[in-house]
Amino acid sequence: MATEQSSTPAAYEKLLEQYERATYLGDANGVLSWDQEVMMPEGGTPARSKQRGAVSAAAHELLVDDDVGAWLATLVEAELSAGKRAAVREIRRQYERKVRVPTDLVEEISEATSDAHPVWQEARGNDDFDAFAPTLERLLELKREYAAHIDPDADPYAVLFAEYEPYLDLDTAERILESLREGLVPLIDAVRDAERDLYSVEGTFPESEQSALAREALETLGYDFERGRLDTAPHPFSSGTQFDARVTTRFDESEPLDSLGSTIHEFGHAVYTQGLPREAYGSPLGEHRGLTVHESQSRLFENHVGRSEPFWAFFTPRFNDRYGTDLTPRQAYEAVNQVYEDNCIRVEADELTYHLHIVIRFEIERELLVGDLDVSEVPAAWNDRMESYLGVRPETDSEGCLQDIHWSHGAFGYFPTYSLGSVLAAQLYAAAERELDGLDSKISAGEFDPLHEWLDDAVRQHGCRYTTDELIERATGEPFTADYFLAYAESKFGELYGL
Amino acid sequence: MATEQSSTPAAYEKLLEQYERATYLGDANGVLSWDQEVMMPEGGTPARSKQRGAVSAAAHELLVDDDVGAWLATLVEAELSAGKRAAVREIRRQYERKVRVPTDLVEEISEATSDAHPVWQEARGNDDFDAFAPTLERLLELKREYAAHIDPDADPYAVLFAEYEPYLDLDTAERILESLREGLVPLIDAVRDAERDLYSVEGTFPESEQSALAREALETLGYDFERGRLDTAPHPFSSGTQFDARVTTRFDESEPLDSLGSTIHEFGHAVYTQGLPREAYGSPLGEHRGLTVHESQSRLFENHVGRSEPFWAFFTPRFNDRYGTDLTPRQAYEAVNQVYEDNCIRVEADELTYHLHIVIRFEIERELLVGDLDVSEVPAAWNDRMESYLGVRPETDSEGCLQDIHWSHGAFGYFPTYSLGSVLAAQLYAAAERELDGLDSKISAGEFDPLHEWLDDAVRQHGCRYTTDELIERATGEPFTADYFLAYAESKFGELYGL
Repeated sequence: MATEQSSTPAAYEKLLEQYERATYLGDANGVLSWDQEVMMPEGGTPARSKQRGAVSAAAHELLVDDDVGAWLATLVEAELSAGKRAAVREIRRQYERKVRVPTDLVEEISEATSDAHPVWQEARGNDDFDAFAPTLERLLELKREYAAHIDPDADPYAVLFAEYEPYLDLDTAERILESLREGLVPLIDAVRDAERDLYSVEGTFPESEQSALAREALETLGYDFERGRLDTAPHPFSSGTQFDARVTTRFDESEPLDSLGSTIHEFGHAVYTQGLPREAYGSPLGEHRGLTVHESQSRLFENHVGRSEPFWAFFTPRFNDRYGTDLTPRQAYEAVNQVYEDNCIRVEADELTYHLHIVIRFEIERELLVGDLDVSEVPAAWNDRMESYLGVRPETDSEGCLQDIHWSHGAFGYFPTYSLGSVLAAQLYAAAERELDGLDSKISAGEFDPLHEWLDDAVRQHGCRYTTDELIERATGEPFTADYFLAYAESKFGELYGL
Repeated sequence: MATEQSSTPAAYEKLLEQYERATYLGDANGVLSWDQEVMMPEGGTPARSKQRGAVSAAAHELLVDDDVGAWLATLVEAELSAGKRAAVREIRRQYERKVRVPTDLVEEISEATSDAHPVWQEARGNDDFDAFAPTLERLLELKREYAAHIDPDADPYAVLFAEYEPYLDLDTAERILESLREGLVPLIDAVRDAERDLYSVEGTFPESEQSALAREALETLGYDFERGRLDTAPHPFSSGTQFDARVTTRFDESEPLDSLGSTIHEFGHAVYTQGLPREAYGSPLGEHRGLTVHESQSRLFENHVGRSEPFWAFFTPRFNDRYGTDLTPRQAYEAVNQVYEDNCIRVEADELTYHLHIVIRFEIERELLVGDLDVSEVPAAWNDRMESYLGVRPETDSEGCLQDIHWSHGAFGYFPTYSLGSVLAAQLYAAAERELDGLDSKISAGEFDPLHEWLDDAVRQHGCRYTTDELIERATGEPFTADYFLAYAESKFGELYGL
């Protein structure tokens, strides 16, 4: 016993050190990826692929090292503090997934997804699903095989979903998505039937002004530019660490509210990252708590702040000053909340229809993975469901089942986290409203600190200390539920559309 | 024998594959470093240090792996093509250096240099050499120890110098530097005695215009922006690979020729990198041939092109167009070639005095390493030599022995490559002039392609295929010599100063 006890802390220290090295390598890869999207000249691709591959491989080797298995075995019965137990739990989870998948298969998937990207791009460009079908079939096969290595007895979709959201099981995801479908389909029908046109912003809004306004929005919302940057990228994203969490956005000169919304969305991701504990950098306790929680932070700021009346009471004068317009706060509020019932494109969807786009992808992916749907049947299945849930049928596959990049990445099981994050945002925001006096009036006065402090306390400071479900219960006092989102949606859009 | 023969190519393939992975990691680190200098917000430093450390360690482990030793042993008697033999020679050289140094010492040096940088910065800021002296002493000790591990019987300076220039031995470096000192001291005296003022450019030149002119210079000189970028950085540098070789510069609104010269210098580095064979990326055959050759490429463009009369015949109208000035080509030529005899700062030195700055550092570093000079004696030794070689005595140590960052990096043995590169630039340019008909008139017509083609053929395409001395002999038909540089300097500055 004496020997075991004295070896335990050493095993923990060694395990953590190795995990930290892998984290640093992963974050180094994040910088390579940011640079590739934002700065790299076109010709750099071949070398960058090699560099990223080498850094990934080095990180992978550290994580699946035999020593890691041995240290984890030593630590099974060790007495550790709650924080250390949580760190070991997270490292164990990752180790057990990674070590089960043969390196050959990892490499095969990596190559197949590399090859898939241009095939998908061309297929989408030519509106030619048949050109992408064999690639999709191959990726599904590889991912089925991948899932079977991790857990041969489990639903492959559940295994893949756990890659992005490890602690909300698939039943929970299904229950939430089902609630969304049941609640939102009639609400969208009612919006359509109301035939009310909300106020629209029209005109030309120069990129330089949009960029300055995006920067102003970030500054007033509380983004720390000492630990971040704002740049442009074709597909906006946020990436980095608690020491350097960067935001990208893009500008369309006729849609000034789109880039602003997208900037605020990415701000939500980045401010979560900036709020992770710095002293725990490298350890699971310094890492984000999976994609559901990450997306909850972006959606909270994008929707519950950035699409709220209080925010536009505060921000409309700044908008008007920048562009020489004379919008009222109500007009701006209406303009950012229009429901586009006849839109086929997920990334252009409003707060309501968005989730039906996700439900369709979730259903189709599940059926594909278990073999209930053949790849050749995807376009029809997609279009039928669009018609049934949203009342609109895509005219082309480019506007239908070829629109998203995710499948070409082999990222089956990813989409639900978008909706789960939105739902969680509503639950968290309702808790913040309960606990913070007069949150609305703080926001209409441009005071965002109380909300940030609440989020620091409830979410950011914990890193991966708690599982997703624990985090939600601790932060809101309740299990994960779609009730707050549905109540929010009905109240907000009911008022906007006079339902 | 049959077994050995069939195992040989396999060992080569494995060796090369492992080396390639290490190169990719090294280049990934180059991107992290570029980002840190050019893009990273201030707060990012702690995480970036960890990331760079992890990537460096992963690369180091690949290179000193026991397998590498075994593969190299297998390949000693293998029959390989000339290119493969060269690749093995380079990998063996690096392996044999790295494997001899204990990991603990590598880490100790890494920490000591990390710690040294802020100490040096503060000492320079406070003009307080004593505050830096113990750090310098410690770094010298560590580097002596490092050199002794690599070769206990060799002059430690020779061992350290070989890190930057592996194939020109220290005797050669000493001979060249001695020729420079002998040739340049009287020439600088003559310039001083001539008391002739060359034309100076005065006025304010907005940063945005300087930036546009730098871009124009890069474009006309033949920089491939599809495989590069131009940005600003506090200390201009160039970095990257043949797929993505970037340039940085800086602007002083009263010195438009400085930023242009610095941009052209970095262009020389970058265009060498862009010209390395792309198909050999990752292998020594796709790598630059050490710091002497690298610096020869930057100096060739900075001095032999960018400070030449033909170049200013071509470029003065562009300069005038940009700034609304009316310089004559002769005035511009004079302005970029002023000799500053009373300047104490290396990075602000002209083509002549520059090398005496290097000689002083070379002499002092050598004496320090073998113990002929004590750290406490450095300021006096520095100032005495400045007075003796350049006729000027620094008033402070900040303008004297504290001015350069190199010692705080532990980079003893680096400085000579700056002068060797300049000398080699003159030898190469003389060979290009012999082989290309009317090079001057091509340049005054803005035709740089013939020079690039000559350099591709003579230098860039070879990567590390030849040793430095072989490369020089093949490119110029002669061994390395300072004769061309001295003849160039005497002729050019003799004419400019009417000597």
